[in-house]
Amino acid sequence: MVTVPLPCDAVPQPAVTTGDAVEVPREFVTYAGNAGIKDDSLDLSIVASRLGCTADGVFTRSLFAGPSVSLCRRHLQSGSPRVVVTVSKNANVATGPQGERDAAELAVLVARAVGTEPADVLVGSTGVIGRPYPMNRLRAHFSRLVMPASADFASVARAIMTTDTVPKLASARSGQAVVTGVAKGSGMIEPNMATLLGYVFTDAAVPREAMAGTFRRVVDATFNSLSIDTDTSTSDSVLLLANGAAGPVGEDEFERALYAVCRSLTVQLAADGEGATKVIRVNVTAARDPEQAKRVAKAIVNSPLVKCAVHGADPNWGRVVMAIGKCWQDTDIVPAAVEVSFGGLEVYPRPLDEDGLGELARRMGSETVEIDVRLGTGQAGATVWGCDLTSEYVHINGDYTT
Amino acid sequence: MVTVPLPCDAVPQPAVTTGDAVEVPREFVTYAGNAGIKDDSLDLSIVASRLGCTADGVFTRSLFAGPSVSLCRRHLQSGSPRVVVTVSKNANVATGPQGERDAAELAVLVARAVGTEPADVLVGSTGVIGRPYPMNRLRAHFSRLVMPASADFASVARAIMTTDTVPKLASARSGQAVVTGVAKGSGMIEPNMATLLGYVFTDAAVPREAMAGTFRRVVDATFNSLSIDTDTSTSDSVLLLANGAAGPVGEDEFERALYAVCRSLTVQLAADGEGATKVIRVNVTAARDPEQAKRVAKAIVNSPLVKCAVHGADPNWGRVVMAIGKCWQDTDIVPAAVEVSFGGLEVYPRPLDEDGLGELARRMGSETVEIDVRLGTGQAGATVWGCDLTSEYVHINGDYTT
Repeated sequence: MVTVPLPCDAVPQPAVTTGDAVEVPREFVTYAGNAGIKDDSLDLSIVASRLGCTADGVFTRSLFAGPSVSLCRRHLQSGSPRVVVTVSKNANVATGPQGERDAAELAVLVARAVGTEPADVLVGSTGVIGRPYPMNRLRAHFSRLVMPASADFASVARAIMTTDTVPKLASARSGQAVVTGVAKGSGMIEPNMATLLGYVFTDAAVPREAMAGTFRRVVDATFNSLSIDTDTSTSDSVLLLANGAAGPVGEDEFERALYAVCRSLTVQLAADGEGATKVIRVNVTAARDPEQAKRVAKAIVNSPLVKCAVHGADPNWGRVVMAIGKCWQDTDIVPAAVEVSFGGLEVYPRPLDEDGLGELARRMGSETVEIDVRLGTGQAGATVWGCDLTSEYVHINGDYTT
Repeated sequence: MVTVPLPCDAVPQPAVTTGDAVEVPREFVTYAGNAGIKDDSLDLSIVASRLGCTADGVFTRSLFAGPSVSLCRRHLQSGSPRVVVTVSKNANVATGPQGERDAAELAVLVARAVGTEPADVLVGSTGVIGRPYPMNRLRAHFSRLVMPASADFASVARAIMTTDTVPKLASARSGQAVVTGVAKGSGMIEPNMATLLGYVFTDAAVPREAMAGTFRRVVDATFNSLSIDTDTSTSDSVLLLANGAAGPVGEDEFERALYAVCRSLTVQLAADGEGATKVIRVNVTAARDPEQAKRVAKAIVNSPLVKCAVHGADPNWGRVVMAIGKCWQDTDIVPAAVEVSFGGLEVYPRPLDEDGLGELARRMGSETVEIDVRLGTGQAGATVWGCDLTSEYVHINGDYTT
């Protein structure tokens, strides 16, 4: 939950490519198909490296973390993961011992199709909770599956979607190497250790000892700074696989590329939050420490009343003040020292006149609403992303399994 | 935040009267009128005891608690409060030093109208944040105000409403004494120390030394066990005034009557949550301690996905499991030991078949949806109340000040 300042914050970021134009890191191949998990949409995808990888993962803190998450944790310890398989439309969570067996069997099926060991397979799963996988359909599908010799990350990004309306992809260059990420998620998103599913693949050679620190820093500042609806999925996983095909790259340069890709995916996730029409970016500065900055920023971005005001472009800035006030354990925050502005327009403490309220309403009509808060308790800061709350969110989530 | 078991939990509760039929405790008089705070609806109310009172209050923990709250805290310390004035449609919060002066002047105006000292006046205020009171209108209104010689709590309950759709009243008997409460609130409600505005008046004689403990226990088990939308108001206040006109009553008997009144008001508040169509009651048992029980219960009742599922009568019970999983610091909660049911229908760990899902959907169509969780970590329990999340909540809160 701690946002450590990234070394790359003050330096230029590499250019990021999104959508179907993302670049493909060397020596990765992909598969995307329909195994009949729920309907006839893409629901099964595989990304495999032809070379051994350095791999890392950050996972949900949920007490009900599913078999996919526990299998990933085991395989990252004991295996040499170089393959990621994802089942969408079924989370395989709260499915008891059968769910554990199914996850293990899935790894066996994938290992056979790719030509590797089950312990080298990582599993992601997303969708409804409490229903077992249709294993007979999965077995039948794998009996026919032939792994392609090429990579199509756009199809993978589509295959991992559930209620997402658009696939999320991003890539950036780090010297000779390519860093490419895909992500999915639109509801049940307030990552505690990670966010729904985010996978990053690179042909950079990243030493194992450097990877964990770098990845954790980047995930904290990106996926872990996103909140759609305060709900934490049982399946949140962010994975990083580096196969080294492009050789070594500078550690800082790699971190910048990784950050740029993950940040782009995070903003794409916010923009595609269930029912969302606007992105909210909250930037808290002059905080005692990064934890306080993030706590206050999250209180704002998670407030249903702030989210509704942003949705309706209602210049009801008092709700931001209310949300800050919820952090009542931060007794060093004194109302008289706090400053709140919307994209540069101060709303507190200097009150807005009628013209100012009109201008605020116009700014709140933008696609991205920027809320800046100076706490006056120190020098630290954090940025978080979220989205507005709409009737569509209610519709989507009142009528999901049926 | 701690739910201490009430002594009255195991014994019969007194009958509760609601609506216009509530009884009036002796020696209280009331006023309700329109001072032009925002429009021509009732926006100013006064409840005054003709006798001196024992008084207590529980208030918001918000860092941005308004001048009304700080004035109440001061007057409960230094004065002998026997009057409660409420301004609705304007919270007088984040209004700077002017807001402090306005609150103090309001107490002076009320004291003059009632014939008492300013320090004997408690102030409640609710509505938009960040706008000063229209003091000229308030002064003009008070120059004409004549305090009635009778009490009409139904009008007071109406005058304190903002986005509430119905007034909330309840009364119960405690021996010779009457306990009568009014409350308002429908959004920005997750009380940390109290809930929006809840006032209880009684003609019982309650010794000061017994009042604080009794009131705190009852508030924790009622108002503080309610969450509409996780947002904590800057103005939350629950007040209790006892004027002793009916003489002394048994301590336990009084606590039972107080609990019955506050519980009724809490359920009325849940049912009138902004946009709500259903009440959600979450009962967590077999918990390690009351704090754990309440934490888990709140995680469930606050989950936007659970709230949407209840709204849509979607039998997606997995979201309850997800919400429990969010309490990741409670590492003694083990999925295998948890049991979840909806009004007696077990959904976890024994999975529902298709018939069961149909039955669950029917139960989720009720006006009150009851979710019961056994954590398997101990013997403690807690009950919380909330409501569903609807498109109407979004409409109300996207278009409130405009």
